[in-house]
Amino acid sequence: MRLQGNILELQLIETLLLNILNFESLVATRAARIRLVAGKRMLVDFGLRRAHSMGGIHASRAAIIGGFDKTSNVYCAMKYGLKSTGTMAHSWVQAFGDEYEAFRRFSEIFPDNCTLLADTYDTLKSGIPNAIKVGLEMKNNGRHLFAVRLDSGDLSYLAKKARKQLDEAGLTDVKIFLSNQLDEDVIQSLNEQHTPADGFGVGTSLVTGSPDASLDGVYKLSSFDRQPTLKISDNISKMTLPGIKNLVRFIDKEGNFYADGILLLHEKNLNTIYDAVHPARKSPVSTFKKEFLLSCVMDHGKIVAPEMNPYEIALYVHERLAQLPSEHKRFVNPHLYKVGISRDLLDLRNKLAGIKA
Amino acid sequence: MRLQGNILELQLIETLLLNILNFESLVATRAARIRLVAGKRMLVDFGLRRAHSMGGIHASRAAIIGGFDKTSNVYCAMKYGLKSTGTMAHSWVQAFGDEYEAFRRFSEIFPDNCTLLADTYDTLKSGIPNAIKVGLEMKNNGRHLFAVRLDSGDLSYLAKKARKQLDEAGLTDVKIFLSNQLDEDVIQSLNEQHTPADGFGVGTSLVTGSPDASLDGVYKLSSFDRQPTLKISDNISKMTLPGIKNLVRFIDKEGNFYADGILLLHEKNLNTIYDAVHPARKSPVSTFKKEFLLSCVMDHGKIVAPEMNPYEIALYVHERLAQLPSEHKRFVNPHLYKVGISRDLLDLRNKLAGIKA
Repeated sequence: MRLQGNILELQLIETLLLNILNFESLVATRAARIRLVAGKRMLVDFGLRRAHSMGGIHASRAAIIGGFDKTSNVYCAMKYGLKSTGTMAHSWVQAFGDEYEAFRRFSEIFPDNCTLLADTYDTLKSGIPNAIKVGLEMKNNGRHLFAVRLDSGDLSYLAKKARKQLDEAGLTDVKIFLSNQLDEDVIQSLNEQHTPADGFGVGTSLVTGSPDASLDGVYKLSSFDRQPTLKISDNISKMTLPGIKNLVRFIDKEGNFYADGILLLHEKNLNTIYDAVHPARKSPVSTFKKEFLLSCVMDHGKIVAPEMNPYEIALYVHERLAQLPSEHKRFVNPHLYKVGISRDLLDLRNKLAGIKA
Repeated sequence: MRLQGNILELQLIETLLLNILNFESLVATRAARIRLVAGKRMLVDFGLRRAHSMGGIHASRAAIIGGFDKTSNVYCAMKYGLKSTGTMAHSWVQAFGDEYEAFRRFSEIFPDNCTLLADTYDTLKSGIPNAIKVGLEMKNNGRHLFAVRLDSGDLSYLAKKARKQLDEAGLTDVKIFLSNQLDEDVIQSLNEQHTPADGFGVGTSLVTGSPDASLDGVYKLSSFDRQPTLKISDNISKMTLPGIKNLVRFIDKEGNFYADGILLLHEKNLNTIYDAVHPARKSPVSTFKKEFLLSCVMDHGKIVAPEMNPYEIALYVHERLAQLPSEHKRFVNPHLYKVGISRDLLDLRNKLAGIKA
């Protein structure tokens, strides 16, 4: 992101911009990773009770942008036009005492979107049998039980047993929805165990981004009064890149992202990119298709970018992520995406930092 | 916490209450752990840019409650009556080009509270020497340079060298303030290295509570229509405790907390507490001083508890934490604080859950 303007105004928005971009990028990235392992199955954000205070509002928006379908956060749904959904609380079941009665009454209130929470007392001995009873009654009345939700215990084992019980009762189209401390690693493990899950509710790890819990984006002055500036560090990888810059993406013939380049604003062509820390590492890029990445979103205080709702942004994210080769998206030892700088930028950085090439 | 009322109203506030209590408890606990290792040195919350969106507002309040002195979050300071403070940005130094000039101008604007950020170019060769130059000029003008701030590199090494340079220049009363990815473990390590630090700015790990990033508090129905209710789990430690309950703390003759007991509302005396998971483990408590912990904070929609500002709450937290023996507060393998339940509550739980004693 490049900001140009009065330094006092730009300083005033530093913290706000970092706060928004760091946090929503963290959650959207987490959501995208979960979408990667969930495939086309339903993903619902369940995070509000564990979110960081009002951060939960932006967390739910970012979850949709990263690829989630719906949220249980009804305020956020109203504010940003998101699809909201929910199941039932354990307290609903407890308040009736009798689980079957609790399920039956719930199905009367939500005849078209009924998901029954099956683990208040005993999932396989009580919850699923009572859900089946209600599901069959709904079927007889021309209605349809949408799903059962399992929220505790060994989810893979319970889902397999529940699927079998439902199928044997003829309720093959009742879905199984899982929740309870899920994240991309747990869902990947459920996949490996061939767990019959049709959807997932994900809370804490999604909206807090734990264990990372933060994205360390920074905001640095790179030019002042038409002169390039530099923040020097003992660690060369933390040194800033001076000057007003541009960003270009190199795309191969199959449409896949190959690398990104950072160049000075006046530069128009870039045939080779250099690693900023180890410049002996360089890559020829002249044969790739080029796409300049920066576009103006705000001009003299007016938003000039077209407005997009979170689902439209999610579609864009989905399309762009599909262009990122899978070796960069795997969870274990991912291949680092290449980012290099131009020769002119390297020379300018070295000159200002007193580094001899 | 015990809530009694109309179940519909109590369900509506479930998520809000969990959100607030889980998050602020997480941050206040983190702040208290950092205070434990920082002793009486200045602690400043620097977290807003890495906080979870607007969660940063409540994070700063919770940081003060847990024992921090001040915050860089000026909105939160205004909203909750907190002390705010700050130093300077790297961009201030970069905008002047000349570091000495940047320091001198800053000292003119903040003659009584001047902290100079010394690591924009080279901490020991440029930052500290320029700070000394300005510090001596201020001294000649009857002013006083408050501190230098180190924000990168090996903080222990740099602080020792900076202290030596400052002392040799006669600026023995200029403080050294450290920041950059600090948490209680890093501060403890700085202590072990006898680092001459007078204060710390803590950001990310404080306001996000990483790597935990969440506190898993829950909200459960324990009684409905005067009947105790239960949520059963395969894992007995996750089973709820039924009925309307009370909380009592047992305090020894030295005033230290020994254990907490959970009992049913009608019970007045508690001579033995039982481990809820392994009831064969029991502790006699009749010789301890008893303190009932619940007090009414809201009645029929009106707040009846006395209002306290964050510093008053912090004082209470400080006093109470001092009563908690140190073996519960150590970071490695802390001794778990004992919490037990009454015989009547144990019997009721077992009866409802179908557990034979």
